[in-house]
Amino acid sequence: MEKILCGVDIGGTKLSVALVSTDGRVIDKCIDCDHVSKTECGMTEQVRGNILRLLSKNGYSESDLLGIGMGCAGHIRYKDGIIITTSNLKGYKCYPLRDAVQNHFRVPVVLDNDANAQAFGEFRFGAGKGFEDMVFLTISTGIGAGIIINRKVYRGMTGTAGEFGHTIVEPGSDMICTCGNKGCLMAVACGMALPQLFRKKIEEGGISSLGLPADFDYSKVDGKLIKRGLDEDDPVSTGIVLDSGRYIGIALYNIFQALNPPLIVLGGGLLSWGELYLSRIRKTFYELARDMMHDPVEIKVSEIGPDAGVIGAASLVLESC
Amino acid sequence: MEKILCGVDIGGTKLSVALVSTDGRVIDKCIDCDHVSKTECGMTEQVRGNILRLLSKNGYSESDLLGIGMGCAGHIRYKDGIIITTSNLKGYKCYPLRDAVQNHFRVPVVLDNDANAQAFGEFRFGAGKGFEDMVFLTISTGIGAGIIINRKVYRGMTGTAGEFGHTIVEPGSDMICTCGNKGCLMAVACGMALPQLFRKKIEEGGISSLGLPADFDYSKVDGKLIKRGLDEDDPVSTGIVLDSGRYIGIALYNIFQALNPPLIVLGGGLLSWGELYLSRIRKTFYELARDMMHDPVEIKVSEIGPDAGVIGAASLVLESC
Repeated sequence: MEKILCGVDIGGTKLSVALVSTDGRVIDKCIDCDHVSKTECGMTEQVRGNILRLLSKNGYSESDLLGIGMGCAGHIRYKDGIIITTSNLKGYKCYPLRDAVQNHFRVPVVLDNDANAQAFGEFRFGAGKGFEDMVFLTISTGIGAGIIINRKVYRGMTGTAGEFGHTIVEPGSDMICTCGNKGCLMAVACGMALPQLFRKKIEEGGISSLGLPADFDYSKVDGKLIKRGLDEDDPVSTGIVLDSGRYIGIALYNIFQALNPPLIVLGGGLLSWGELYLSRIRKTFYELARDMMHDPVEIKVSEIGPDAGVIGAASLVLESC
Repeated sequence: MEKILCGVDIGGTKLSVALVSTDGRVIDKCIDCDHVSKTECGMTEQVRGNILRLLSKNGYSESDLLGIGMGCAGHIRYKDGIIITTSNLKGYKCYPLRDAVQNHFRVPVVLDNDANAQAFGEFRFGAGKGFEDMVFLTISTGIGAGIIINRKVYRGMTGTAGEFGHTIVEPGSDMICTCGNKGCLMAVACGMALPQLFRKKIEEGGISSLGLPADFDYSKVDGKLIKRGLDEDDPVSTGIVLDSGRYIGIALYNIFQALNPPLIVLGGGLLSWGELYLSRIRKTFYELARDMMHDPVEIKVSEIGPDAGVIGAASLVLESC
């Protein structure tokens, strides 16, 4: 029987475990939503149990696995398999998750940042197929990214390379990021920033046609509300989409100048804003790059779909093969 | 006899050729200042002649060379050895300088961007010794940079990676860079920007104590004038040094988030502004990086000195050894 992969995606609301074929198809998966309430050991036990159950349910045993790949948001010390910090799981501080899981399995276990995992998944199975180098940027609640150089994830000293979401793109901004700094890309152009961005537009005199109540709680502004606004030609929502798209375009341009990759792949929930958003990103990028771009840089949209988390995590097993 | 290297630094005012030992010492060098007035072939001939003369004068022959490394400002297509564009040499457009020089020599000839060359020189012989990865940033008339990953220069698709000088750090700025964009790092924090920065400070009500004439030509503002102002406690000059230092600090922070290198080395003429400048850079960087820096990132000053151009160029020969 052909070997398979296991991918574990540890998110803030869902713990997803999947068996994945070596060509990137999900064979079966299971999703739990109670992992955040567990202790570190409890979550580790949950991961172990889910993997074993999935294997058994699908007629596999551990020896059919090439390995287990895990992706988790936050700062991960890849070499040591340690979660340094993660906002998804409260109280985790330097938890050696990789070794905790590895203790239960004989096949190789790897742990990486979830954006690195998705970047490698995209590289192996999605929009990055056929390239040697690429940058992946996911624009969702937060902004994550992964750098592929010479067919491997480039992780830097600690393992935190590719944090383009925390690069400063507007030093004079009063928009605060979760990291505490002002004016990072995440502070001005991701899902978490939408409440601040919306309130600011209103305070600056913008009038929304969304018919929101006078006592509207701006913390409820999310990507879906902005998408509705966009569909209804709400000027405030449209303005936010254009502003955010411009900042992402600037970020892509900065990535181009820094790394000169042949390909940048975009993923994440905010891409559901559609063509106005994407064309604003591309236009900003190409206008800035102009005659400094001597070989075309492709900007593509993620192709591995809604299972990107587990497929990406599983793909990490193949990185060292 | 031990083999030696040859380094060629093609600048906007000087063409420097040097024989360099494999441990990075200049054995002998010659400098011409008339290369910019020559045709492409004329300059190539000049490089060839100077190399042969230096070898002969010092009792060497071509067979004593490990190779010839050339550094030139601008966009260089490294793989093909082509100068795509350079502001130093007028009219050069996709000139295959490497092969033009290679035609006259049997030893390997390489051509790269001058900042990449200096980065590799710093890595082999200077502040980067003992590291595997580093980023080099030179702050002078312009801002150049080079990325070392896994003991090699990382060049990207075309060869233009590491152009942090052209990353946008102030999108709303009206400061124009030579590239045509506004708000790049070079537009707000290098020697070329000083006339604009000085005029702006004066227009905003700044009063300089430098005793400049009423009809002062701001285009004459350079790093030396600002250094004089700094020494004399001129508030306008001091303000420019602090502003520039802050932007460089932000750029280093963005490099940290993007690449997570263990070391960033700073070089270039503006470092002569001294401790106020350097401490502003470091303070800005470490304040932004805070608890996101899990392993210390060192910020060091270039150590290979005034011959960095030719030593860097020569060092490129060792990259492929």
